[in-house]
Amino acid sequence: MKLSNRIQNMLFSPIRKLNPYAAEAKKQGVYIYQLNIGQPDVETPKLFFDAVKSFDQKVLSYSDSQGINPLIQSFIEYYKTIDLEFSEDELLVTNGGSEALLFALSACLDQGDSILTSNPFYSNYRNIADIVGNQIVTFPTKAEDGFRIPSFSTLESSLKPNTKALLLSSPGNPTGVVYTEEEVDMLCDLCIKHDLYYITDEVYREFIYETGKNHSPTYREDMKDRTVLIDSISKRYSACGARVGVIASKNKDLVGNTLKMSQARLSSPTLEQVGAAALIKTPKEYLDAVRIEYRRRRDILHAGLNSIPGVVCEKPAGAFYIVAKLPVKNSEDFCKWLLTDFRMDNKTVMMAPANGFYSDPSSEGLNEVRFSYCLNCEALEDSIKILKLALENYSQK
Amino acid sequence: MKLSNRIQNMLFSPIRKLNPYAAEAKKQGVYIYQLNIGQPDVETPKLFFDAVKSFDQKVLSYSDSQGINPLIQSFIEYYKTIDLEFSEDELLVTNGGSEALLFALSACLDQGDSILTSNPFYSNYRNIADIVGNQIVTFPTKAEDGFRIPSFSTLESSLKPNTKALLLSSPGNPTGVVYTEEEVDMLCDLCIKHDLYYITDEVYREFIYETGKNHSPTYREDMKDRTVLIDSISKRYSACGARVGVIASKNKDLVGNTLKMSQARLSSPTLEQVGAAALIKTPKEYLDAVRIEYRRRRDILHAGLNSIPGVVCEKPAGAFYIVAKLPVKNSEDFCKWLLTDFRMDNKTVMMAPANGFYSDPSSEGLNEVRFSYCLNCEALEDSIKILKLALENYSQK
Repeated sequence: MKLSNRIQNMLFSPIRKLNPYAAEAKKQGVYIYQLNIGQPDVETPKLFFDAVKSFDQKVLSYSDSQGINPLIQSFIEYYKTIDLEFSEDELLVTNGGSEALLFALSACLDQGDSILTSNPFYSNYRNIADIVGNQIVTFPTKAEDGFRIPSFSTLESSLKPNTKALLLSSPGNPTGVVYTEEEVDMLCDLCIKHDLYYITDEVYREFIYETGKNHSPTYREDMKDRTVLIDSISKRYSACGARVGVIASKNKDLVGNTLKMSQARLSSPTLEQVGAAALIKTPKEYLDAVRIEYRRRRDILHAGLNSIPGVVCEKPAGAFYIVAKLPVKNSEDFCKWLLTDFRMDNKTVMMAPANGFYSDPSSEGLNEVRFSYCLNCEALEDSIKILKLALENYSQK
Repeated sequence: MKLSNRIQNMLFSPIRKLNPYAAEAKKQGVYIYQLNIGQPDVETPKLFFDAVKSFDQKVLSYSDSQGINPLIQSFIEYYKTIDLEFSEDELLVTNGGSEALLFALSACLDQGDSILTSNPFYSNYRNIADIVGNQIVTFPTKAEDGFRIPSFSTLESSLKPNTKALLLSSPGNPTGVVYTEEEVDMLCDLCIKHDLYYITDEVYREFIYETGKNHSPTYREDMKDRTVLIDSISKRYSACGARVGVIASKNKDLVGNTLKMSQARLSSPTLEQVGAAALIKTPKEYLDAVRIEYRRRRDILHAGLNSIPGVVCEKPAGAFYIVAKLPVKNSEDFCKWLLTDFRMDNKTVMMAPANGFYSDPSSEGLNEVRFSYCLNCEALEDSIKILKLALENYSQK
């Protein structure tokens, strides 16, 4: 039976595509430092588990399609702490940021329409766009200047006639870039001039290391109708497995209509929402401590990478990723070799080949990898040693 | 800002569209028998909650995109009890049956292709098809003969050139129809002759009241490649809020490729999968008792409805729904009126207007409603009394 073209053309996640090789190495007893995936090692606040364990209903029933009210209220309260006012009818709970994006694309774009994003971009944007029949078009950014937004005219020339929305993450995945106020303003101007929605993925909002300030179109009064915020508790509270996200917009008509899609999949998981609602009580110190820890890790990883001959990377301002150029021809071959052939004291490292984050994975980012610094400082230092030795021993075909 | 045409054209769930009126009535202190929604009142097996409460990891991390292995194993074990053999690479855990359907459509059909289903059909089929850019085409069935499959030639004449799959639920939602072996064979023959996938939604498999036997294309050797099974623990174990579903197919290529979509949304919720995996230990007596209870309810509701002058319905063989014709012109108006105006001892009933389950909601099923018998026998008997009195008092515009 012929599979659909759309599923055949879809790509496996660059973050997870080497999993079979990792599984094989683990079977052989090899220890792998997993720098490929944004899975924090930080403890989830105990509040989450306590709330789940206190759930005492006998029937695990559907929740409201929009999300349970205590969770909606907790998002309202959280946004107040960052000077954003949302009312109940401006929020919808989703199955992680992924579903928030799927809903946002479906609500803003028709099949065949395109979204403008940066190159490189978070790879799952492409697959989710594929599912709902939208294309990705990109504007160029460069490793050498830390993946900054290009000029207004470059942005404009990247638009296609069917481009209906801008989709960007800041702090960014995979690059860790944090846009400045000027950059966000320029992006907003682009949206207004060309009548685009601005879908802003801010799941790494709490991970900005120097300025601490997240610039966002959600703060602009003149962008109210066209801004759709995608958010999630996954990274903020190290609760990736809860799959609790949210879509937030001052465009009530958009949120109201999006409820149709929420109803089509009935509800988000009930228990995980109960746990998530309790997280609003997490003391401020939790996030402060996490931020300090990630900053330390970023500095270790960045300094370590720059100590290896031939490795090029800028220091990113946020999230917990670094994209670096390695002195190899093909980073996917190298990453695979690390898992299949290379060991230092029976350990190795796993990274995500960065070409999968580019518009054309067959020609772009071929010598780049994405590192996630979700491991502790000691593990990162050891990983750098392994990577250094591996690069010395790697003979390229 | 203009919303997409697809979201504007999508319909609100006929099951949930009257929720605002129900909420208003509840605020006034009115008790509502909710016969609109398939939310069982049966207790979820305690095994589920015990497993969740025993979860002792400090970090709630992503699970494997395919689903946690203990859950995959538990599905394999469950299917063995109904004489189906699946291996690990033939199963994918999903966010409920809804996501299983979204994945199945995306894997089998390209944008613009159509699916053949019965008329009426489960209303969310349409919205999920809308999200991924597919159309629904239908073959006619009739309340008068209990919504049986029509002749082969009628099925054939309902196909369009772009029809790539058949999608049916048996036991069926909204009608409760259970297809006979002959009907399933005819449907399989149709798929083979016209090169269609057969997406078989069997979430109500355990709710067949007389024969106990579920006929399914999954048992046919010559249908292996074209059969995609959609399943869920929601109804079987009264665990709707867990949102744990599964997609199962002997077509390994299809399942392998579908993993790309699983990766795009990272994983299903971790805790709910842990709970769901434990359900395989549910004693057989649990389902037996539930089945006996639902059968009793069906008989009460069916007899009660037939005792009301002008109400027409056949006795369905499975699931927990009945579609009935009422002596009203417009059942949606009537259902709304029940919530806004009618009370018996300060109580009323809520039903789902059935036109929303038809291909053309503006002209079909206008005097029909769908009842769900997820309430206990006493509540059903009281509901019948209320409905009877309401119909006597309803003056149609």
